[in-house]
Amino acid sequence: MQFHERPILPRGFRCASRNCGLKPTAKDLALFVSEVDAAAAAVFTRSHFPGAPIIVGRETIQGGRLRAIVANSKCSNVATGERGIENARRMAAAAAKEVGADAGRVLVSSTGVIGVQLPIEKVERGLHGMRDDLQDDPRVGAEGIMTTDTHPKALSTSVGDATVTWVAKGSGMIEPNMATLLVFIFTDALVDSAALDKMLRDATAPSFNMLSVDSDTSTSDTCAILANGLAGAVDNRELARAIIAGSIRMTEMLARDGEGAEHLVRVIVRDAASDMDARRIAKSVVNSPLVKTMVHGADPNVGRLLMAVGKCVDCTVRPDTTDAWINGLQVVRHGQRMNFDENLVRATLRTEVVDLEISLGVGSARATAYGCDLSQGYVDENAAYYSS
Amino acid sequence: MQFHERPILPRGFRCASRNCGLKPTAKDLALFVSEVDAAAAAVFTRSHFPGAPIIVGRETIQGGRLRAIVANSKCSNVATGERGIENARRMAAAAAKEVGADAGRVLVSSTGVIGVQLPIEKVERGLHGMRDDLQDDPRVGAEGIMTTDTHPKALSTSVGDATVTWVAKGSGMIEPNMATLLVFIFTDALVDSAALDKMLRDATAPSFNMLSVDSDTSTSDTCAILANGLAGAVDNRELARAIIAGSIRMTEMLARDGEGAEHLVRVIVRDAASDMDARRIAKSVVNSPLVKTMVHGADPNVGRLLMAVGKCVDCTVRPDTTDAWINGLQVVRHGQRMNFDENLVRATLRTEVVDLEISLGVGSARATAYGCDLSQGYVDENAAYYSS
Repeated sequence: MQFHERPILPRGFRCASRNCGLKPTAKDLALFVSEVDAAAAAVFTRSHFPGAPIIVGRETIQGGRLRAIVANSKCSNVATGERGIENARRMAAAAAKEVGADAGRVLVSSTGVIGVQLPIEKVERGLHGMRDDLQDDPRVGAEGIMTTDTHPKALSTSVGDATVTWVAKGSGMIEPNMATLLVFIFTDALVDSAALDKMLRDATAPSFNMLSVDSDTSTSDTCAILANGLAGAVDNRELARAIIAGSIRMTEMLARDGEGAEHLVRVIVRDAASDMDARRIAKSVVNSPLVKTMVHGADPNVGRLLMAVGKCVDCTVRPDTTDAWINGLQVVRHGQRMNFDENLVRATLRTEVVDLEISLGVGSARATAYGCDLSQGYVDENAAYYSS
Repeated sequence: MQFHERPILPRGFRCASRNCGLKPTAKDLALFVSEVDAAAAAVFTRSHFPGAPIIVGRETIQGGRLRAIVANSKCSNVATGERGIENARRMAAAAAKEVGADAGRVLVSSTGVIGVQLPIEKVERGLHGMRDDLQDDPRVGAEGIMTTDTHPKALSTSVGDATVTWVAKGSGMIEPNMATLLVFIFTDALVDSAALDKMLRDATAPSFNMLSVDSDTSTSDTCAILANGLAGAVDNRELARAIIAGSIRMTEMLARDGEGAEHLVRVIVRDAASDMDARRIAKSVVNSPLVKTMVHGADPNVGRLLMAVGKCVDCTVRPDTTDAWINGLQVVRHGQRMNFDENLVRATLRTEVVDLEISLGVGSARATAYGCDLSQGYVDENAAYYSS
């Protein structure tokens, strides 16, 4: 699939971002608006401690229609009780007033520190007049939701006459469960909300739900899709395929920008006994701190791949049928380390994208997990996240 | 329970260690010998890729009796195929010859890099004459099995007239599953091997199986206990309690010496709906990179405790009944961050032992997990483990 060189928003969608005082100077507030009501679907974190925006958002999405998304960074409005829920509702109401919509058609998202009350007055003041800033570049909206991201993340593609656009944030506390970080997908294709909901779930399973930066699941994960219909109907199968492909591409962008990361790591598990086994083993390898540091140090310590497969004690694994490759170079054959050229493996581990491929030889299922290396930078960023 | 100030081996046990050339100069070979046959039990890693010593050891322990343990560091003899198994048998035979025992009564353990053949001739030459070095200090044996450990780990206590002694190694690739790292327990109490097996399993469940340095499960985990009976019978319940208490103490020593660690972190989960829930949630918190970096940086970002509890989606958790304390200071009440003194929390996070206590308020089950903080040192050690 081809992505646009410079991402654009679909017809009828516009966005803006601002600093409203939650951060000292960087942007911390984003608004995405459709000029007409859009069919909508969303999936959220399965955490037992969902943020107030998740609790409110689950109600909002029941209607299956949205006009706007308002999102802030720096404070996630999680573990904030009744007052937090009231603040999330005030945030929706303020955005609704600004764009001339019903508050029930505005989805709220917040990301940042857990357990701190949202300074709602700053957000309300920040939203005032923001409709005058609305414009077409999705990267402007993406800027408003960055936390430790090193760059705004947006992506777009064409399906027939329609456009599909992804805007996302996220670099730590990332192992989404049944949803993801903050990912907003916009399209001007005409689709009803039931079809949209199915397309979204089919797309998150092989993409955001196979992403792990650090095995920690956020309390704010939200992935929403809005379709305003302004481009008319397109081939729904083509649209569904595009939504999957773009979600995988966005997953790779998020993994590559994991906190402290220097590499995108893709773990491809194939010939597994079941889809569940393939997914669990791929996640085990992508989450292994010893595999992640092996990649970081370009250290050809390939026995760690077997360790990370071997610890999945509930999966079907046979040492004598297990093979492994790093960027196409075979390093394990029949469960044993091969006599490979270590300098070649060191060199390929230094490339930006590292594919770790494992064939289990016990079936035909496959899965790919997306992650990154583990560096000193991850520790540096997270040892003082709250205090800094 | 009181531990001896200077650990000793029980009557009839002696040990020695040497450099046999696997490492440049540090000790890499250890021998533990009982002067008479000892009742014995052992548990091993559940990894799908067990090392050759595990495969051979599972046969050896069937007999329920051991005379000696021979262990080497630097090379784990894992993923080495038939030749690896042959080398493990040669290692047992060489040790048996040196101490005048049957090879079927010698347990072999190896730890170190995965996927490299063991230089068996070096080990055989190293064992030759080693009986002349045998002596009483268990720390001498512990020295021979160190990898990234910063100090040899040994511990002893008295039960009636008998002594119980633990010797262990381990600081990375540590989340044992149904067994542990290398832990050898010696006693001169008189116990049959069936009773010993039960005592060992009862002791590993709340201790080594609740330990995680980095969530990675070794392919070499072995925990063995030898009872040579030279002190006669003691109160078996008292002995069982001592084996549990000493195993927990050794677990704390191992966690504190985790790779790069500066803190021992104990996660106490109580008032859980079931034992399984308590264990899973305690492990989730102790393994969370964001909780570990919070401790490392003494950053009072206590929302991360809720995140790590909340991601256990299959456990019973109610936000409104969840409370949390750091070293006795309450930081979460009814699922919400409290308005606590941040400087107090910062100060207590700087102490060597950090207790994170979580009350779920949904039952009466409890569990404690043992781990450490995540530092730049962990990344440094593991980014070049093979190459250095």
